[in-house]
Amino acid sequence: MTYWVRWEKEQKAMEVNAGKTLLEVMIEAGMHPDAPCGGEGKCGKCRVWCHGQGEEEREVLACQTRVDRDLWVRTGESVGAIHVLTGGYGRKTEIHPLVTVQRIALAPRKEQPGLSEWERLQKASGIPLRESLPMVRKLSQRNTKDGADLWIVRSREKVLELSFEQEEPQVWGAAFDIGTTSLAGYLVDLKSGEVLTTASAINPQFSYGADVIGRANYALEESEEPLTACIREKVNEMLAEMCRRAQGSCQDVYAVSMVGNSCMHHLFLGISPQSMVHAPYQPAVNRHLILPASDLGIEAASEAEVFWLPLIAGFVGADTVGGLLSTELAWQDELSLLIDIGTNGELVMGNRSRRMACSTAAGPALEGAKISCGMRGADGAIEHVEVDESGGVHIQVIGGGIAKGICGSGLIDAIAVLLRIGVIDDDGHMNSDDQIDGQPVYWFRRPQGTDSGVYLSQKDVREVQLAKGAIAAGVTLLAAQLGITLTKIEKVYLAGAFGTYLRPENACRIGLIPRELENRITAVGNSAGEGAIQILTCENAIRDAERLARETEFLELASLPEFQDVFVDELSFE
Amino acid sequence: MTYWVRWEKEQKAMEVNAGKTLLEVMIEAGMHPDAPCGGEGKCGKCRVWCHGQGEEEREVLACQTRVDRDLWVRTGESVGAIHVLTGGYGRKTEIHPLVTVQRIALAPRKEQPGLSEWERLQKASGIPLRESLPMVRKLSQRNTKDGADLWIVRSREKVLELSFEQEEPQVWGAAFDIGTTSLAGYLVDLKSGEVLTTASAINPQFSYGADVIGRANYALEESEEPLTACIREKVNEMLAEMCRRAQGSCQDVYAVSMVGNSCMHHLFLGISPQSMVHAPYQPAVNRHLILPASDLGIEAASEAEVFWLPLIAGFVGADTVGGLLSTELAWQDELSLLIDIGTNGELVMGNRSRRMACSTAAGPALEGAKISCGMRGADGAIEHVEVDESGGVHIQVIGGGIAKGICGSGLIDAIAVLLRIGVIDDDGHMNSDDQIDGQPVYWFRRPQGTDSGVYLSQKDVREVQLAKGAIAAGVTLLAAQLGITLTKIEKVYLAGAFGTYLRPENACRIGLIPRELENRITAVGNSAGEGAIQILTCENAIRDAERLARETEFLELASLPEFQDVFVDELSFE
Repeated sequence: MTYWVRWEKEQKAMEVNAGKTLLEVMIEAGMHPDAPCGGEGKCGKCRVWCHGQGEEEREVLACQTRVDRDLWVRTGESVGAIHVLTGGYGRKTEIHPLVTVQRIALAPRKEQPGLSEWERLQKASGIPLRESLPMVRKLSQRNTKDGADLWIVRSREKVLELSFEQEEPQVWGAAFDIGTTSLAGYLVDLKSGEVLTTASAINPQFSYGADVIGRANYALEESEEPLTACIREKVNEMLAEMCRRAQGSCQDVYAVSMVGNSCMHHLFLGISPQSMVHAPYQPAVNRHLILPASDLGIEAASEAEVFWLPLIAGFVGADTVGGLLSTELAWQDELSLLIDIGTNGELVMGNRSRRMACSTAAGPALEGAKISCGMRGADGAIEHVEVDESGGVHIQVIGGGIAKGICGSGLIDAIAVLLRIGVIDDDGHMNSDDQIDGQPVYWFRRPQGTDSGVYLSQKDVREVQLAKGAIAAGVTLLAAQLGITLTKIEKVYLAGAFGTYLRPENACRIGLIPRELENRITAVGNSAGEGAIQILTCENAIRDAERLARETEFLELASLPEFQDVFVDELSFE
Repeated sequence: MTYWVRWEKEQKAMEVNAGKTLLEVMIEAGMHPDAPCGGEGKCGKCRVWCHGQGEEEREVLACQTRVDRDLWVRTGESVGAIHVLTGGYGRKTEIHPLVTVQRIALAPRKEQPGLSEWERLQKASGIPLRESLPMVRKLSQRNTKDGADLWIVRSREKVLELSFEQEEPQVWGAAFDIGTTSLAGYLVDLKSGEVLTTASAINPQFSYGADVIGRANYALEESEEPLTACIREKVNEMLAEMCRRAQGSCQDVYAVSMVGNSCMHHLFLGISPQSMVHAPYQPAVNRHLILPASDLGIEAASEAEVFWLPLIAGFVGADTVGGLLSTELAWQDELSLLIDIGTNGELVMGNRSRRMACSTAAGPALEGAKISCGMRGADGAIEHVEVDESGGVHIQVIGGGIAKGICGSGLIDAIAVLLRIGVIDDDGHMNSDDQIDGQPVYWFRRPQGTDSGVYLSQKDVREVQLAKGAIAAGVTLLAAQLGITLTKIEKVYLAGAFGTYLRPENACRIGLIPRELENRITAVGNSAGEGAIQILTCENAIRDAERLARETEFLELASLPEFQDVFVDELSFE
């Protein structure tokens, strides 16, 4: 009786007699495992991570583990350390792509008289490739009587393509971040892990509703079908455009990974968001899904698969899981805080042993929406505001031209500066003689004799207060639930474009981020998209993502009796 | 940490703390396991059959097996005994259908605030149902805020249908035997295991070639596409017709099982038979396949699956595996022989611990093809021939009318009778003054003054000699390879319609079956079709079938140096 043992990092599989220990197998395979106690199970140095089919991975001692079924084994450092290697939100230094290409030399048939064609392929690849009808059909067409050289493109034991061409096939993957407002796409070369090109677009669902609630209502009152159709069509367009720019074809794309909030997830997949719009606001399904791209109408290689990251709850989605995957929060012992500010603000606090997530109704104010002169971070947006020693206020405009509006980072700066020069007091009250429609405003640019420049109004300040109050309350309540004091948090990961341009001192000045954490803030950019990319470049990432999602507790803020109280407390800029 | 333990016979699943022994779990679940040694691993009475996901089933002691992963456990008698229960080629006395229907009561959402809709379904069913996008979509459409009653139709953990109707859904399966010449279909009620109705048809591929070789050649020279399209269309017709007769719809059919020889298997699936037409005559794929019915264009429930039984070799196909499954050959210690005579004659000899199969080039002569007046067993066919004490020859005609031809069983009888009355000698030489085209013939019915009645010619006798010689040589060589003497064989299973009407004494008289086995012959009818039905009524049968196929050795007769010699020896009727 023999079983297959697959060494994941080493990318090899071997048939092993039942009953051998993994340590023996490693030694015979020339892998030089560290076992100073001589395999007595005492030193713990030979630990590996292993699992049978369909099982969760467990840490075991190779010397104490006998091969009694097919096993997948991962050697080397801990799960955490592997993620340190991939760099998280930086460049990858080591990749174990989801899809690989392998050169195969089939032996002549007469040397293997007892084997079916598929078994000859398995033998030649050294891997117990799963039978796939389209690939069996393709193989059956070719007379390989005298042996043959071919390429297989595979995802672990699943064959996605089989080519008798001389030239090595391209193997690409695509990652998508499906935001409520905007979509980001990344085309990745799975051989190098390199991002070949990117694409972005406005989410075409905007015509059915500006935000998640509007679209969910449309889906419930009318149908989710047009919402599903238009987003899939847009993703296909972006994919085609990226492939064109990289001088290849959609047929070269074998895996597509996706992140997005829970509502975007449901609408993309054609699932009704019905259960998410009522308490207890849970999604219809929360585990990760691996689906044939063709079932979803995604135009890629015929056997390509779509990987949707798992959800944590109705308002903490796959985008947050992507962020967890790409930052080090869930892999390290030190306590960290992940803040992802978008339409909602999602927070995760904790470390590798315990984590808790919540969603705050921050609203899109911090991204410039609902603000009188708010705009996205594009040319003409005030992105920074400063005050000089003599109290003069200076603005910095993206593109360097005339200010047309104010974006998220500019807004935070503006409020911090106005607090400093006393235009706004700690309660958010604005002292200004300038008024529009009866409410005080502060002008940053006012063309002579007009009311059409760029200003901040009392109402704008209130919007920011509500948003920052929601986030600050979330941080306070998470810490309370976890029983930790804020000073124990060693790192704050600030995700999203907003975080990249934000001045940490000003975010802390207005109380968006606790002041004690000012020097611990790292902007991590689109960490959700990074997480989606990691699904493609690290074959274990989807399993890690599932574990992260299931093992991150969800805190429903509104259900806490103290929530209103803390929220009102946090409204102050004090 | 908890794992799922599923009790297959008891049809229940439970969440169990890691580290418990299966014996403890059984006791707590009130299952009264037999453990006289008190769980010390000494008495062996608590043995069960268990496996983790994707693993082979193994016999273990419940008291010595700790739950360290999700486990499937089968209690009770040995694998063999279970199959004794199902009766093999008789009526089933106990069924464990592949697809079952379950009534589910979803709890109100507010009682399960942390669960997704799918997790609520899992909780209510007590089974870790796998996420399926179409079913998640269906579930998401319904507002089950206050709880709901529903039906799920499932195959183990896969949900195939979900219904909020009051009425319990029908759950049907269909089994097909795809023969080279004829097709047989069975519609099975999966709740009772009862065959509701059957259908038969001529294989429409006949227009591309009368036999396997003709069709394989057409596929290689032209294309397998029309062959694939016409057989699938015919199967759909038969399925629709059976459902109509049983007053239901194709949408009630959740599983379709299929047997057939390796060429029929390939052509049904659209796989080229290319590798089977050249030595070493191996199929493109030999393992069982489970495929979405919709991928194959089979019109059934939207999530229905097609189960193709595995193949043993290019000329020993899924039909033989079906025969192995439905007879007791592979489950008992006594030695048996399975003979399935159709276009080819497939033989399997052995018992539960070792089996060997071969294909003999018997040709379709024994079914009446290639015989001057040969016909299928229909009205007008001579089905039996007898000789009375005074040497008078009497014929028995199906339907009682005038003889129009002779079918397989009549042919065997005819030769046995003509041997007895000396018209044919042991070498097969016919002594007759009647001649047609210069060769001796024996008339069974000759209308006055014509040559258009029913007769047997010298050439016909030669055809039968070649066919019976091939089978007898196969039997002899299998016995030699296995090192057993023929008298050790305790049972001969004779499969196919031919076997049902055959007179054992005459089959032995002409040497088709060794004389020493005359009293051990049992006709098992369409044992291949029975095997296909068993896939539907016994959820483990597909796994059993795979094991039977893989653990049955294949003997390529033509590769044996002694083959020609034995074959020529066996041509004699002596």
